Amino acid sequence: MNTYRAPLQDMAFVVKELLGLSRICQLPGFEEATEDLFDAVQEESGRFSQEVIGPLNRVGDREGATLQDGVVHTAPGFRAAYQQFVAGGWNGLTCDPEFGGQGLPNLMGAPIEEMWHAANMAFTLCPLLTRGAIEAIHFAGSQALRARYLPNMVSGRWTGTMNLTEPQAGSDLAALRTRAVPEGDHYRITGQKIFITYGDQDFTENIVHLVLARLPDAPAGVKGISLFVVPKFLVNDDGSLGARNDVRTVSLEHKLGIHGSPTCVLAFGDEGGAIGHLLGEPHRGLEIMFIMMNAARFSVGVQGLAIAERAYQGAVRYAQERVQGIPVGMTTRAPILHHPDVRRILSTLKSRIEACRALAYYAGQMLDFSQAETDPALRAAAQARSDLLTPIVKGFCTEIGVWASSEALQVYGGMGYIEETGAAQYLRDARITTIYEGTTGIQANDLVGRKLLRDQGAMVQALFQEIRTSLQALSGQPEAAPVAAAVSHALAAAEAASAHLLARAKDDPEAVFGAAVPYLHLMGWLISGWLMARSAGLAAARLEAGGSDTAFYRGKIATARFLADHGLGVCDSLRDSIVEGGAALLAMDASLF
Amino acid sequence: MNTYRAPLQDMAFVVKELLGLSRICQLPGFEEATEDLFDAVQEESGRFSQEVIGPLNRVGDREGATLQDGVVHTAPGFRAAYQQFVAGGWNGLTCDPEFGGQGLPNLMGAPIEEMWHAANMAFTLCPLLTRGAIEAIHFAGSQALRARYLPNMVSGRWTGTMNLTEPQAGSDLAALRTRAVPEGDHYRITGQKIFITYGDQDFTENIVHLVLARLPDAPAGVKGISLFVVPKFLVNDDGSLGARNDVRTVSLEHKLGIHGSPTCVLAFGDEGGAIGHLLGEPHRGLEIMFIMMNAARFSVGVQGLAIAERAYQGAVRYAQERVQGIPVGMTTRAPILHHPDVRRILSTLKSRIEACRALAYYAGQMLDFSQAETDPALRAAAQARSDLLTPIVKGFCTEIGVWASSEALQVYGGMGYIEETGAAQYLRDARITTIYEGTTGIQANDLVGRKLLRDQGAMVQALFQEIRTSLQALSGQPEAAPVAAAVSHALAAAEAASAHLLARAKDDPEAVFGAAVPYLHLMGWLISGWLMARSAGLAAARLEAGGSDTAFYRGKIATARFLADHGLGVCDSLRDSIVEGGAALLAMDASLF
Repeated sequence: MNTYRAPLQDMAFVVKELLGLSRICQLPGFEEATEDLFDAVQEESGRFSQEVIGPLNRVGDREGATLQDGVVHTAPGFRAAYQQFVAGGWNGLTCDPEFGGQGLPNLMGAPIEEMWHAANMAFTLCPLLTRGAIEAIHFAGSQALRARYLPNMVSGRWTGTMNLTEPQAGSDLAALRTRAVPEGDHYRITGQKIFITYGDQDFTENIVHLVLARLPDAPAGVKGISLFVVPKFLVNDDGSLGARNDVRTVSLEHKLGIHGSPTCVLAFGDEGGAIGHLLGEPHRGLEIMFIMMNAARFSVGVQGLAIAERAYQGAVRYAQERVQGIPVGMTTRAPILHHPDVRRILSTLKSRIEACRALAYYAGQMLDFSQAETDPALRAAAQARSDLLTPIVKGFCTEIGVWASSEALQVYGGMGYIEETGAAQYLRDARITTIYEGTTGIQANDLVGRKLLRDQGAMVQALFQEIRTSLQALSGQPEAAPVAAAVSHALAAAEAASAHLLARAKDDPEAVFGAAVPYLHLMGWLISGWLMARSAGLAAARLEAGGSDTAFYRGKIATARFLADHGLGVCDSLRDSIVEGGAALLAMDASLF
Repeated sequence: MNTYRAPLQDMAFVVKELLGLSRICQLPGFEEATEDLFDAVQEESGRFSQEVIGPLNRVGDREGATLQDGVVHTAPGFRAAYQQFVAGGWNGLTCDPEFGGQGLPNLMGAPIEEMWHAANMAFTLCPLLTRGAIEAIHFAGSQALRARYLPNMVSGRWTGTMNLTEPQAGSDLAALRTRAVPEGDHYRITGQKIFITYGDQDFTENIVHLVLARLPDAPAGVKGISLFVVPKFLVNDDGSLGARNDVRTVSLEHKLGIHGSPTCVLAFGDEGGAIGHLLGEPHRGLEIMFIMMNAARFSVGVQGLAIAERAYQGAVRYAQERVQGIPVGMTTRAPILHHPDVRRILSTLKSRIEACRALAYYAGQMLDFSQAETDPALRAAAQARSDLLTPIVKGFCTEIGVWASSEALQVYGGMGYIEETGAAQYLRDARITTIYEGTTGIQANDLVGRKLLRDQGAMVQALFQEIRTSLQALSGQPEAAPVAAAVSHALAAAEAASAHLLARAKDDPEAVFGAAVPYLHLMGWLISGWLMARSAGLAAARLEAGGSDTAFYRGKIATARFLADHGLGVCDSLRDSIVEGGAALLAMDASLF
């Protein structure tokens, strides 16, 4: 019932047909990322997901990770699976070949990551965090630091962690207290960090902690935070492992979901200070942290998509097998799939999941362009688009993920509420995605503050212009036109909302930031809807041209149309809430709650 | 942090001011239900909820109910709390005085029930089910059966259960197989029932199971189902307990939430047949079952409201205490309550919860009118309104409950995901409410099929007419007018949707029933929005008249306005989905999933 099947056909459609992998593999560095390679890697990754990590998903949930005598033991099977993961060369797929990576574009990496998260989100968090740490060291590390750490991290022989949060410092990193004191060529780190994903594990012989801390002379606030590389075991100059560093796992959190992923409280420096190396310049830790954070935010967005797909697949299979009642319009008992309301739920799930898939992969592609475009103007434009998309992918796809896992559970009726069925785990797992690596509210503040307001709407306008042009072309296409019309409506709503927020930002900042989450949703609907309209147009063109896969293309058109008629309609109410709801929000005084 | 405080002021506002308890206590049988009695009972019930069952909520979740050697043991403290519940006379609050009840109206019972569910949903399921069983026996039982069972059930000395579901028969009761064979003055029942809430417990010496089964000569389908009273221990003529009946607890389900409530698999007749008594006429079991089902559906709707309130309270308290960052528009660190997005979440929660409260209590009041109005026309009108409201209260308030418990968790950030915080339990508990006693889809089918279509829209039109008249009066009221305008818009949407469904029912039943859930949501928004508009009008009148509680009334106006600006806007997209989305749904062929 719960076997995961990678949706290879839809993934390939988005990557190859909608977004055009062929455009990416013309860029320097991505020459090898051909469609043939994509197909081969997809298939292999699908197999790994379905056969190796997928079957461990329930075990991870049931058994969880445990802490015994200060040592974390992962759930049965996880360690062996991780070894297979490393042996398969999966960890460094999108990493720099200089350090042993395969240098594949994110447009190829995104579907593979989706598979892993769909198969086993708790497992895949480990490489997710490692990749963030790799990007930070790659971006800011000295050649010596990079040489010492990256090869083993890229291969997956060592894993990486992000140590940001402290009890008093969650979203508010300015409040963090962990201290770093210089000593010779290194620093001594002291402090407690919480919510450290895979802060310890029994997969690898070493773990590389990236730790935010304050130097003794640090200015207050976020401008006084530095970033340190703090390995679990010190690394000798010859690359061999030295002494155990002064970092200790104090406890594991008892969480709603992702039980297979050990969430650690880490104590640094209980015995005099953990030895760490400064990464980048003093007091510039936050900038580097955002490098790994942005990578992680993108990946968590993919996670939202992935868990939605997984939950959807389970619901479809249940609905195909479970016979209850005589559906409206039929004369005999039939699987519940045929009940109109179940069909509505599954259609809603399918249409939103495919929209999120297009959105997430599109963001991955923009990241590739931002790294590999040779024309500086194109590169800058791609960077701006990628910056704009990151909070939207993170916020929108995870909110859809939580919603989808709950709706999918509903399809099972009472059976969905029984843990053995497995549907409940998807909801429990999904529920963290709108929180970690920055809540939806934090993403929305980033979107409004740094992406919309900072350049006075320039990057948003560029997107709107591109969408407008694209919709004009689609509106002449009978199959795509109704979808394009709905997206056009959404575009008008997004334009009005953007103009309003830009106009009010100075005089009415509370109302503007109070509208940030509705604005994020509106942008998510718009962009994902636009990509679905393009998908419909493309599918119609393929059908016109004749050829195979007609069922898939017809399905894509129907799905896009369903999204237009049963999803995008919400954009108007989001616009109204943003444009007209400020006064009502400000009237809700804190004393009323 | 998680202490529950009954929202006495809002409850009293809805019961006494908005709906008018004084109108109820003029009806025969409800003379004692005065405002003074209401105040006294509310306060006492608040204390019981906060001090007795509330503190057991976490224990129930952590320890759960267990099955040892065929005997169910409830979580520590539950048994003693139940005894206090019975000793306090709480069980029979709204039951017939002839059998020891206090005969209070549902308008008084609903807020009390809300408190219990908010304090401890898993505990309160036991009396919820008992009350359903009481209503069924009261409605259909012979005088002998009533005399034998009701006094002990009304007092709470014995509890009751509903035995409907079988593995192959969930929503589809026509498929049930449990058999009843006549033997002398009783029947022998054989079969297995699943999902039996409090199917066994250690609270009471006896349990009265109401069991759906087929007689040997029963026609196929739902017209061949009879209902039986099957006590755990046989009851002698003198009322004393006799032999153990042939019913056995096979296992307990391992559920996502409500761990404190034992969900049993019950085997009837493993040793020759459990002895049961026919309730009502043969083959008419379903009609009687709907009596208890409707009572239970109303109560589950209240449960949705209750868990939303509980989750909201926790989020408010966390947001008041947790200091993170400098909110927009402020200059120093402050509790997260002051961040615009947190304020938006809490305002959204508060406005929807108060709307659901008005809706649920209103339905309770209509039930009272349907029972006690002396004028037959008024009684029939109230019955029709009550019938219309039941699926809406069940469907809408529980969907809001699931959404609210998830949004409330979001306010805690990472802490919300940690089980010790308690927020996660509310989400896990809430998640069953849209499923049991009929999923949202089943409620929506009932609404469209039995309430909208069966009388060709008559009961819906009567409601619309009443809302229209009411809105006209409110539109002249400056404080209420903006809310009334939004409701007026929602009314137009509901009218268009109703007309469409009525017009298409014959030719396009699949699309019509595929739109049932959006229609239920639309009706829920409309009616609850209307009640909030009336609340705003009432609050404004009170403020004009001068007097105390100005903060409360001002808050009510602000909350209603917030609902209008940040909630009711969704009605247009629901209408579009219903009126224009049929073709898109039908195009989603089963083969596409």
